[in-house]
Amino acid sequence: MKPVKYLLPDTHIPHAWYNLQADFPTPLPPMVHPGTGQPITPDMLEPLFGRELIKQEFSTERWIEIPEEVRQIFAQWRCTPLYRARRLEQALDTPAKIFYKYEGVSPSGSHKTNSAIPQAYYNMIQGVKKISTETGAGQWGSALSMACSQFGLECLVYMVKVSYNQKPYRRALMETFGANVIPSPSDTTDAGRALLESNPDSTGSLGMAISEAVEVAVKNEDTKYCLGSVLNHVALHQTVIGLECITQMELADVYPDVVVGCCGGGSNFAGIAFPFIGRMLQGKEKVRAVGVEPAACPTLTKGRHAYDFGDTSHFTPLMKMFTLGSTFVPPGFHAGGLRYHGMSPMVSHVQDLGLMESISFHQLETFAAGVQFAKAEGIMPAPESTHAIAGAVKEALRCKEEGKSETILFNLSGHGHFDMQAYIDYHAGKLKNYAYPEAEIAMALAGLPPVNH
Amino acid sequence: MKPVKYLLPDTHIPHAWYNLQADFPTPLPPMVHPGTGQPITPDMLEPLFGRELIKQEFSTERWIEIPEEVRQIFAQWRCTPLYRARRLEQALDTPAKIFYKYEGVSPSGSHKTNSAIPQAYYNMIQGVKKISTETGAGQWGSALSMACSQFGLECLVYMVKVSYNQKPYRRALMETFGANVIPSPSDTTDAGRALLESNPDSTGSLGMAISEAVEVAVKNEDTKYCLGSVLNHVALHQTVIGLECITQMELADVYPDVVVGCCGGGSNFAGIAFPFIGRMLQGKEKVRAVGVEPAACPTLTKGRHAYDFGDTSHFTPLMKMFTLGSTFVPPGFHAGGLRYHGMSPMVSHVQDLGLMESISFHQLETFAAGVQFAKAEGIMPAPESTHAIAGAVKEALRCKEEGKSETILFNLSGHGHFDMQAYIDYHAGKLKNYAYPEAEIAMALAGLPPVNH
Repeated sequence: MKPVKYLLPDTHIPHAWYNLQADFPTPLPPMVHPGTGQPITPDMLEPLFGRELIKQEFSTERWIEIPEEVRQIFAQWRCTPLYRARRLEQALDTPAKIFYKYEGVSPSGSHKTNSAIPQAYYNMIQGVKKISTETGAGQWGSALSMACSQFGLECLVYMVKVSYNQKPYRRALMETFGANVIPSPSDTTDAGRALLESNPDSTGSLGMAISEAVEVAVKNEDTKYCLGSVLNHVALHQTVIGLECITQMELADVYPDVVVGCCGGGSNFAGIAFPFIGRMLQGKEKVRAVGVEPAACPTLTKGRHAYDFGDTSHFTPLMKMFTLGSTFVPPGFHAGGLRYHGMSPMVSHVQDLGLMESISFHQLETFAAGVQFAKAEGIMPAPESTHAIAGAVKEALRCKEEGKSETILFNLSGHGHFDMQAYIDYHAGKLKNYAYPEAEIAMALAGLPPVNH
Repeated sequence: MKPVKYLLPDTHIPHAWYNLQADFPTPLPPMVHPGTGQPITPDMLEPLFGRELIKQEFSTERWIEIPEEVRQIFAQWRCTPLYRARRLEQALDTPAKIFYKYEGVSPSGSHKTNSAIPQAYYNMIQGVKKISTETGAGQWGSALSMACSQFGLECLVYMVKVSYNQKPYRRALMETFGANVIPSPSDTTDAGRALLESNPDSTGSLGMAISEAVEVAVKNEDTKYCLGSVLNHVALHQTVIGLECITQMELADVYPDVVVGCCGGGSNFAGIAFPFIGRMLQGKEKVRAVGVEPAACPTLTKGRHAYDFGDTSHFTPLMKMFTLGSTFVPPGFHAGGLRYHGMSPMVSHVQDLGLMESISFHQLETFAAGVQFAKAEGIMPAPESTHAIAGAVKEALRCKEEGKSETILFNLSGHGHFDMQAYIDYHAGKLKNYAYPEAEIAMALAGLPPVNH
């Protein structure tokens, strides 16, 4: 039999996260306060986040130990499998070797659990009783609900009202894990009540949901807030993906020429790519890292590297990142997890340093790649992950053209079981591509905060 | 770290299926022809089924080799993990050790793929071009669609019209795998047209869908029919589950005192239990095998062991099985895969020989067990599988009462990602238990075919 999957025993779950900050040739630009323009200090974040997580946010240590309690929960599904996509290679008739890391085996169906578990854990040992968060597409809310159920924490999820109504399956998953899911805007916070007063029919937005979740954390001693992407500590937690890949590719006796991941907030790309980029910075193997994003929300490919707010309501500190402007609202394409105006500051720094490339695809191309992948490999990819597939397919077809048998590794960050409406629309010919929103982006970029001027 | 999962490398995918027929103390009663009352011979089944599958249906060989091409596809997700449910044990405060085999990691999300792959394979090597089948809940249709996509076969799925409309996600999964899914009754067959003529608004039934799928196979030289449960060759294919468990429990250094599976048509129960029952019949370890069924369709616990038709339209041969009468229509509870009037003849024979026990639960009990399991273990079980969980929990609580630390093994036959509506209804308090349908069963049993008299 030809090997198609590479498994590792529990003993190979990484003992430490890898922090790319330790190997950056120039340091990461700090978060700054929008009022003073001065760097944010750890104590300023204490009302919001757990202490250990704030420490990680600022850390430049290369390795940060993963607590045994976290590894014990990870053991339920980690190490996740690394697959050789032999049937996809055959379908593409490419000399390239295609590998993919499958994060969809996690309890919430995506990589999000990698950060949800340690975030819940660190808050629990600090004595926090309740976690508040927001969720749009529902991946992060599901992961955090599951994490909280493991550590006996209450979990309060503000879910964008339109998603709350359109995605009852995601909501039921969170409720099964014991979370309290509230459609946002709601009457449970001052922010929500103000929003409802000005517009009782509001269907909500991620920015509004963040405001509600943050308010609850700030106003309640026993409550902290958690975020599922963008931040340094989230990128850090996701490095278990790439670290496992390094060992698994040794088993397969190959090393990737190119590593591909989709980019929304940046966490799953960081997770698979940072450990490889780190080795390159340490003088080890060279690798190309490719971030793939939707053409309708082209942060890395068309955005500006500038200080901007993380949210639309301008409650967050300023972060230096590739951004389309915090007031940019992406069109309604189906990969909800990639509909973000900004990008992880660490991923942005990596691109700024020339350590990665980025490309974009329209959604009809990514769904076509996703369906081809599902037929060949038997796994339904999440709409977000179809972007990584499209990127890998493009590389494989280049290899075919050039007659090269390169090794391609991509991150299949999640399954699409809760996103089948997208496939229904795709099969019915109802999906369309969106034109590049040039004018909207220009307008949003014109409103960047003054610290950039 | 405490071990919670037991993985096996691809090399441990079984090389042969185990056939319990080789070890039965008294032979399995044969299928008989409803007209003549005489045993069915293999040639009579040739218009419907692939030759190799018919051979397996009648075989009493103990071991039947699994083709390498089938093992190669299995390698995508097999060996499936065996888990120790440590958090569920903790939640139940039981001295029992609870293990579960998780078949939900398969491409279709359940054990059904174990038989779909070999059925598609044997038809392919025989030169068959097209497979027809029916599906109700959609698990079998998804598995066969995926199997056909792997071997380049066309797949035609007649899906009960009410499910076709209510379960668009399942349908989209099949279509993504390349299947042609037709709502039944349809105008593509004589049977369908006749049904539509007498009732244009018919929402269909499994019996009607079978009639359409069978007609297509019988009328087209290049088309064969496939069935996802009940038959001997399907039970045979599922034994990879139990065979892997035996090796995995050796890794965990335990042997089960009791093996639990849910029972609809019987295939997943057969899969996990037959290899253990076989060892017992060979004079090796004793084991209790427990089949769990819905109280609203209590085939094993309240049915009669008699010759009956496999379908409501009386097209099939007669099989000796526990049955509620082929005209019995179970109430609309949520575990669609368990809504069958009969039971695998092999499972029925096992119960008749006193080699297994059976119990039933109402659906409110099984969903409560399913939610408790999901919270503890992070996996959303299929509504069918919650029956096995409820059975295992009952055994674990008995162990607590008796102060015994027995080892319990159950089959988590699938995930519930496509069945979240059931959980939504459960959380909303909309689910109800159904009274034991005593009168309906008595009436259906009164109509058993004359061969029993």
